[in-house]
Amino acid sequence: MDSDRFERGQATLSSIHGHIGEGVMRALGDIAPEFARFIIEFPYGDIYARGILSPRERQIATIASLVTLGHSPKELRAHIQGGLNVGCSRQDIIEVIMQMAVYAGFPAAVNALLVAKEVFQEIDATRLPEQESVAPPSRPEA
Amino acid sequence: MDSDRFERGQATLSSIHGHIGEGVMRALGDIAPEFARFIIEFPYGDIYARGILSPRERQIATIASLVTLGHSPKELRAHIQGGLNVGCSRQDIIEVIMQMAVYAGFPAAVNALLVAKEVFQEIDATRLPEQESVAPPSRPEA
Amino acid sequence: MDSDRFERGQATLSSIHGHIGEGVMRALGDIAPEFARFIIEFPYGDIYARGILSPRERQIATIASLVTLGHSPKELRAHIQGGLNVGCSRQDIIEVIMQMAVYAGFPAAVNALLVAKEVFQEIDATRLPEQESVAPPSRPEA
Amino acid sequence: MDSDRFERGQATLSSIHGHIGEGVMRALGDIAPEFARFIIEFPYGDIYARGILSPRERQIATIASLVTLGHSPKELRAHIQGGLNVGCSRQDIIEVIMQMAVYAGFPAAVNALLVAKEVFQEIDATRLPEQESVAPPSRPEA
Amino acid sequence: MDSDRFERGQATLSSIHGHIGEGVMRALGDIAPEFARFIIEFPYGDIYARGILSPRERQIATIASLVTLGHSPKELRAHIQGGLNVGCSRQDIIEVIMQMAVYAGFPAAVNALLVAKEVFQEIDATRLPEQESVAPPSRPEA
Amino acid sequence: MDSDRFERGQATLSSIHGHIGEGVMRALGDIAPEFARFIIEFPYGDIYARGILSPRERQIATIASLVTLGHSPKELRAHIQGGLNVGCSRQDIIEVIMQMAVYAGFPAAVNALLVAKEVFQEIDATRLPEQESVAPPSRPEA
Repeated sequence: MDSDRFERGQATLSSIHGHIGEGVMRALGDIAPEFARFIIEFPYGDIYARGILSPRERQIATIASLVTLGHSPKELRAHIQGGLNVGCSRQDIIEVIMQMAVYAGFPAAVNALLVAKEVFQEIDATRLPEQESVAPPSRPEA
Repeated sequence: MDSDRFERGQATLSSIHGHIGEGVMRALGDIAPEFARFIIEFPYGDIYARGILSPRERQIATIASLVTLGHSPKELRAHIQGGLNVGCSRQDIIEVIMQMAVYAGFPAAVNALLVAKEVFQEIDATRLPEQESVAPPSRPEA
Repeated sequence: MDSDRFERGQATLSSIHGHIGEGVMRALGDIAPEFARFIIEFPYGDIYARGILSPRERQIATIASLVTLGHSPKELRAHIQGGLNVGCSRQDIIEVIMQMAVYAGFPAAVNALLVAKEVFQEIDATRLPEQESVAPPSRPEA
Repeated sequence: MDSDRFERGQATLSSIHGHIGEGVMRALGDIAPEFARFIIEFPYGDIYARGILSPRERQIATIASLVTLGHSPKELRAHIQGGLNVGCSRQDIIEVIMQMAVYAGFPAAVNALLVAKEVFQEIDATRLPEQESVAPPSRPEA
Repeated sequence: MDSDRFERGQATLSSIHGHIGEGVMRALGDIAPEFARFIIEFPYGDIYARGILSPRERQIATIASLVTLGHSPKELRAHIQGGLNVGCSRQDIIEVIMQMAVYAGFPAAVNALLVAKEVFQEIDATRLPEQESVAPPSRPEA
Repeated sequence: MDSDRFERGQATLSSIHGHIGEGVMRALGDIAPEFARFIIEFPYGDIYARGILSPRERQIATIASLVTLGHSPKELRAHIQGGLNVGCSRQDIIEVIMQMAVYAGFPAAVNALLVAKEVFQEIDATRLPEQESVAPPSRPEA
């Protein structure tokens, strides 16, 4: 129906989350297909696609919010990966999380750092050993 | 005692909040002087002074967190002003708040937009009329 | 642009909040006109307009959520009035709030009951004395 | 001691949660038997047993609150099952959760939809195949 | 009906909050008299009256929780006064609030310290000047 | 650099959490070594080391806060163990959690009681059978 928003949303979702975003939409689609569409249209089609802030700045804001909420480690994981995809370094993400200790408390920050650690370890585990040897150290920014 | 952290913290606090930060510290100093010192040393001396993220990016993260918490409009107001001081435009701040509707809900975002509106109106009200006439429009970015 | 959602949203907003909703939209429109439009389109045009649950049930859910959030007394006030507009009795609203003591704690429930008390008193204060005398008692359900 | 409240609470608990409620009470009884009693007496004996709102409306309010809290997926699961037991359709529950995206944010709603999906899948998995064939489709309302 | 719990609750409420608790109960009684009774029976009659922890320790726990919630400054104020009534010093209360910066973030702690400051100032303002002169300094512990 | 705070923090951390605290610091050290240092310096070196409140009272406040947050069961577990280490009985901890039902809601309290149950069961499981037979019953205070 509102095909502009949906297509713009899909493009934005894909630019941030790659193929992983599609999996979440499929999982939701089984139970609430219209909600899956709303997620593509409103957060991704209306909000993230607005420009003004850079994709990197938008992921900084989202990571800050998810650390503060404290109750959504899966979404945090998705946006840590999204942050890396749109130009945040690992250290940028660690810094945002550390800063959240000030506003959301240390437990929220510690939990989020351990989520980030898992994301980074999974990325490192999927790299080929030879790539490793020629690539710069896997966490140069840490 | 740990004069480095304190001095670094005071400089960082002042670069973000100007003289307003001093007022808060005085208000706290009456009841909990050591806590006023901790605020200067830990958030401002240890965290905000780390570099890595830009001051602008750090205010984006803090505003996102305060909108998400929802219970601290005074701190939100201070960091909206702080954001403007370190290079965020009014529209940048509005965008961060709007994005928070996705993560923290619409009421949290609406309340925060009304706080931002107050901050912007106060700034406009303190400008001299003549300045207005030669200055660029007061909200060019809106 | 997406005039269907916007018109449907305005009609739904108006059926719940009457003219009060327009005031909020105007206050937001000064600072974030597109966000005012998003509120009409997404919560009111996409969600509240879906049918399935009755308007009364949707206000019960919203009041429960706002009591649980605890940080948005103005939105709570608007939805208590909205609940009365779509068929909740005063006692229905009091019951929802009381039940929230179980999930969100007693302070959240007490604060919300005092908001409801204010809303009910304001309604009673704007009734003409003569109406009172012919109308059923102002709180028949309490 | 206060046997009225306890018996009324047990009857209400059982009408909402069936035998599952007893399991929770036993798990709590090992560590805090008086708290298990308080749960039966206050939420179920004092609050849910009050009438005024229908059992279905009370589960709508509770599900809204648990989605908003975000930190209690087990209780959410119990009240999704409770909602189905007292007359909510699957689609009713999905609608309440979707509406919570507006107030508690999309991550809270997405997580809750995935909890609901699990509950519905478990119910479907325990149905006999032959029942399926004569019964209406397992999710007619979705 | 359950007069034991009610009487025990009233005695406990009164030992913590003095006459101020009665005012809150009256304000609630206008809109939800049964909820006012529940507050006396459950938190005060069932929980606070259990012994095991000292009244002082229970106020420490409650103040910690209210600072963490962040959305209930009036209840925080009542329990700061309650803490003073059951043997907490002003510095004890300040310490609990300061510690909450670690778990609930600095804004929650700063807001709570400013509530405590107001409570202490009001107490000091109601002391007779002559009392002051013979009494120990009004904030010996700060 | 600030070796006093760090050493004082390590001693305090160790007096509360024993060797378990070191494991958390190592896990964090891989990803954010400076944050591990901040945790030792600020919460443990600056706050917990202040005296004024007893270590037991400080754990009561922390447990109350973590139950209220609801999103950090691992930190809650660590502070339940910490509470036992600094002089809280099992029943003290159960009482603090029960009291939190009043402020943070029943689901938060139920979840926390089940965490406490696990901690107590793990402690009991690591006791030698012979010790059991000569020791007082494993949960004398429950």
